[in-house]
Amino acid sequence: MRILILGGDGYLGWPTAMRLSARGHEVSVVDNFSRRRWHVQHSTDSLIPVRPLAERIDAWREVSGNEISSFVGSIEDAEFIDAVLTDTAPETIVHYGEQPSAPFSMISRKHALETQRTNVLGTLNLLFGIRDKVPDCHLVKLGTMGEYGTPEIDIEEGFIEIEHKGRKDTLPFPKMPGSLYHLSKVHDSHNIHFACRIWGLRSTDLNQGVVYGVETDETALDERLTTRFDYDEVFGTVLNRFCVQAVIGHPLTVYGEGGQTRGFLNIRDTLQCVELAIGNPPELGEYRVFNQFTEQFSVSELAELVRRSAAEVGYEVEVRKYPNPRVEAEQHYYNAVNTKLLDLGLKPHHLGEELVRSMLETIERHRDRVIERAILPSTQWKPGELEVPEIAALRAPRPR
Amino acid sequence: MRILILGGDGYLGWPTAMRLSARGHEVSVVDNFSRRRWHVQHSTDSLIPVRPLAERIDAWREVSGNEISSFVGSIEDAEFIDAVLTDTAPETIVHYGEQPSAPFSMISRKHALETQRTNVLGTLNLLFGIRDKVPDCHLVKLGTMGEYGTPEIDIEEGFIEIEHKGRKDTLPFPKMPGSLYHLSKVHDSHNIHFACRIWGLRSTDLNQGVVYGVETDETALDERLTTRFDYDEVFGTVLNRFCVQAVIGHPLTVYGEGGQTRGFLNIRDTLQCVELAIGNPPELGEYRVFNQFTEQFSVSELAELVRRSAAEVGYEVEVRKYPNPRVEAEQHYYNAVNTKLLDLGLKPHHLGEELVRSMLETIERHRDRVIERAILPSTQWKPGELEVPEIAALRAPRPR
Repeated sequence: MRILILGGDGYLGWPTAMRLSARGHEVSVVDNFSRRRWHVQHSTDSLIPVRPLAERIDAWREVSGNEISSFVGSIEDAEFIDAVLTDTAPETIVHYGEQPSAPFSMISRKHALETQRTNVLGTLNLLFGIRDKVPDCHLVKLGTMGEYGTPEIDIEEGFIEIEHKGRKDTLPFPKMPGSLYHLSKVHDSHNIHFACRIWGLRSTDLNQGVVYGVETDETALDERLTTRFDYDEVFGTVLNRFCVQAVIGHPLTVYGEGGQTRGFLNIRDTLQCVELAIGNPPELGEYRVFNQFTEQFSVSELAELVRRSAAEVGYEVEVRKYPNPRVEAEQHYYNAVNTKLLDLGLKPHHLGEELVRSMLETIERHRDRVIERAILPSTQWKPGELEVPEIAALRAPRPR
Repeated sequence: MRILILGGDGYLGWPTAMRLSARGHEVSVVDNFSRRRWHVQHSTDSLIPVRPLAERIDAWREVSGNEISSFVGSIEDAEFIDAVLTDTAPETIVHYGEQPSAPFSMISRKHALETQRTNVLGTLNLLFGIRDKVPDCHLVKLGTMGEYGTPEIDIEEGFIEIEHKGRKDTLPFPKMPGSLYHLSKVHDSHNIHFACRIWGLRSTDLNQGVVYGVETDETALDERLTTRFDYDEVFGTVLNRFCVQAVIGHPLTVYGEGGQTRGFLNIRDTLQCVELAIGNPPELGEYRVFNQFTEQFSVSELAELVRRSAAEVGYEVEVRKYPNPRVEAEQHYYNAVNTKLLDLGLKPHHLGEELVRSMLETIERHRDRVIERAILPSTQWKPGELEVPEIAALRAPRPR
């Protein structure tokens, strides 16, 4: 199958590209290197060094014998994206090409506008390109479980049947997301749904949980094929961040009470889910939503898991509650449905101490690259509300 | 009260500015003249000639003795909008400053992107300005009933209580709008709701129906104070368009079956509703939605009303069904709640033959300005689906 991956240089985009290439698909990637640029601007970086895209592609050819084509440009550029669509004639597009961080979107007005412009207008521009150049193409779009927020009712997969005043309809699940980034994904979902309803496009919106881990079958083949590993307060997701903190002897930064509960999944399961979506495409005109996570955890549960796993291999880890820089419920009801991908055959990798210990090992190898300044929460949802905490004095770390 | 009106040169913005000025408020207006520019670009124009903003303001001073201040610029410009907010220190902002047409948003990719950029990013930029400069200010935002689409259940005012699997929550009403313009308003609603929840701003989102009519107490005072009257397929709303067609002897352009049912209101009631919202502000942190319309009609009912009213004063009017350029349900359930503004004291002006005849008279005075080319639907929701109809041969019109 001809597959185009937008954001193919990213944390998930690059492993996805290799996986699909390994399966024999004809893979092309698009990236404008925004993620690398944002890290430079914030003086942060991936813990594991990542090679430039062209080197990765060379290494992949060497290791696998497979070719991945790349196009450098932005999906906001109509001329560029139309040319890529014409040139590659994709049967499936996997769309990771967005600004992916909630804290980033809350740093400032400029960051918020850049997020909604990049994501909402970029994706709208892409939808026109698909309509006009490859209308049969299946758009696999990465959304987020964060679109739903934390309602008092169970979270369904995209749609909910509502009975109201003696009548019934199945309508989009109401959204109350918690950041301007998450809102950009809500806007995307509405625009994509429209494109399917009105233009007859087809799309799978993967409302993904928080991804952890760094190793897939392909990244493990060669050091040059590794994917990025972010642990900073802007781009690092919570489990990755806790593991880095455990290794360098920094208290685990639990925001507020730690009762915030979310869906999580292993990066290996992200790849499985994307493959399942591609292999089971929707009909033309269909817009479907899969909730893409395998387990639910609270932040405190994750902190405790990391503390316990790290203790067994000799790290002494403190779990500390920090004033919450976000405005969010810290204790709340949370129960989200995630059966559609399981029904298609997803075999989850569950999170346990073994996985955490393997992450700790990986981090240990790169600990000299940790930028401590970037760990503590400094991005506030309500600017001026909190004192920015000092970086905790680091204890002498105790590797095994 | 200090009131800032965004889009103060527009169809509703200018009459609102005069009304609030007449009531003794300290009124400022912002406009970047996009609406005038779009008409120039499409070779269309208001049927009734409208004076430049500065002349209108001079005329208003002469007629009423009241001063209206004006600022020319875009709400997408952070520096500009911050300076205006600082300078005028508004206690209320009435926000009409958006691209207001569904067909405009569907003309092309460029029009779609301009619509979502102008509306969504413009309003997001404004929200930051309010947060940082005038956080207590009440934002009265013009939304649209079209945000809801046409669900099989009754449409509530912004929120709906959902009982699901034994639990309950009150959540945003699910949205399935019918154009990329309407989507921009959905995105706005989500962003504004967020700003209220997270930053503690306050806002009233007026989900307005289709407005008709052109005369208010203030526009009637002097010809130079008139507001614009659009009848073209892009910016003209349905009743205004039918009345012009009746006068020039063009068949009334019913799209498809004509069973499309929507909420409607007189321009006089728009002003009443905005005054009621301003006079009864929400608490800080509150986001509330009022459904702002007074009656529901189907397109066929409106066509019949215009035909009947026009016949009584000597016009012979044909109602004709045209292939529908939009993708929409032409027969559907529609029942929307609109009690919140009535509870605040709204006294509706109901639509009847008298109002239609008064519109016909106004149009008759300007019939030599009608641009026939601009009447027939040429903007298609699914390009390439329809033959664009020829302009119907005009019968000799029969004025009284």
